[in-house]
Amino acid sequence: PPGRKVLIVYAHQEPKSLNGSLKRVAVEELSKQGCSVTVSDLYAMQFEPRATRNDIVGCLHNSEEFDYGVETWQAYKRGGLSSDLIEEQKKVQEADLLIFQFPLYWFSMPAIMKGWMDRVLVQGFAHEYPNCYDSGLLQNKLALFSFTTGGSKEMYAKEGSSGDIRYLLWPLQHGIMHFCGVRVLAPHICFAPEYVSEEKRKEMLIAWAQRLKTLWKEEPINCSPEWYFK
Amino acid sequence: PPGRKVLIVYAHQEPKSLNGSLKRVAVEELSKQGCSVTVSDLYAMQFEPRATRNDIVGCLHNSEEFDYGVETWQAYKRGGLSSDLIEEQKKVQEADLLIFQFPLYWFSMPAIMKGWMDRVLVQGFAHEYPNCYDSGLLQNKLALFSFTTGGSKEMYAKEGSSGDIRYLLWPLQHGIMHFCGVRVLAPHICFAPEYVSEEKRKEMLIAWAQRLKTLWKEEPINCSPEWYFK
Repeated sequence: PPGRKVLIVYAHQEPKSLNGSLKRVAVEELSKQGCSVTVSDLYAMQFEPRATRNDIVGCLHNSEEFDYGVETWQAYKRGGLSSDLIEEQKKVQEADLLIFQFPLYWFSMPAIMKGWMDRVLVQGFAHEYPNCYDSGLLQNKLALFSFTTGGSKEMYAKEGSSGDIRYLLWPLQHGIMHFCGVRVLAPHICFAPEYVSEEKRKEMLIAWAQRLKTLWKEEPINCSPEWYFK
Repeated sequence: PPGRKVLIVYAHQEPKSLNGSLKRVAVEELSKQGCSVTVSDLYAMQFEPRATRNDIVGCLHNSEEFDYGVETWQAYKRGGLSSDLIEEQKKVQEADLLIFQFPLYWFSMPAIMKGWMDRVLVQGFAHEYPNCYDSGLLQNKLALFSFTTGGSKEMYAKEGSSGDIRYLLWPLQHGIMHFCGVRVLAPHICFAPEYVSEEKRKEMLIAWAQRLKTLWKEEPINCSPEWYFK
């Protein structure tokens, strides 16, 4: 609906890929709805995935023994995080919906996107004990993981060799998003696009556009072990 | 035992950290046993986590549309991967045991280590359909995930807020190591070292050294859904 803000965190090297097309479809459809859409194109930004001392501007809280979690927490509180992190946090803060668009690498996000999680969602900004899970600091936001796989739907079935696809969503949806208080919409999964026809791939894009038309009416999933492992 | 080769892939910024000490303990104990131990100290190496075109030396297989999986597979076959990857693959090839030592970041490895998985374990080297899982290409090797957590053991219990710690090991142990044919030893977990006494932390180091003394007699876990989700 008009006025809603969406951040798409996107990790693919190739604009012509299906991931690139899925991202474009989302920008178009959500813009058409009147949403304001921002894209963090991680490879194009050459986003830094490594969590290092460079993320803190100026002096360290403890220069004797570097603790990344403590240092970024302290730096956040005094406004001393590196500018690329401040920039991403602003986008997150303003967003009503976060869409993560990526190809599944090793049952998870590509490292460049994992680095976005590691570095952007710092203590004080996204969570601060005991404000985690339902009381995390990013409440009133939604997140959606939209990704492509190499393996087929059959491999990612409960009795398949790779197990239920939901098993691998636990760390992403529960461990990251839910931990920060973000409610999670059902994932959007395109299985094995490399092994289907061009026509099937077009259908995948149409299905995504269709889903986005009624996305704001969706209820978040019940992000508890039952959803993942029942 | 004498002659066994161990590769420790280590991801912590601070040598004085518990992770740094756990790494040192492993190097010492395994060396004492007569093993030859190699360490990939990812932060010290400024290891590149991003999967990009730079990983391929020379021309691309398809310069019209970049597909990282296909390009690194082709590059591997013609010896055209970047030198940092060839170096890491050599270490993996020679190793009988891979130890991954890291602090848990967001229910998973830090991005710099995820990047090691994404970039080093390329198709052709670590797996090549249908050679995956029990017939993966890195058979006759063992892997062990050794990590520290922020959350307590209670949080990572089945009924705890973060769920059974085994849930989050599925992508790492099954999705990565088992997929490549590597058998997995039980993980070594130090819960919440930041919140315990110096004495308790010393006990953690002693326990790790103790375990390593009889490590070669351990049986791999049964890496199936039951181990993780039963």
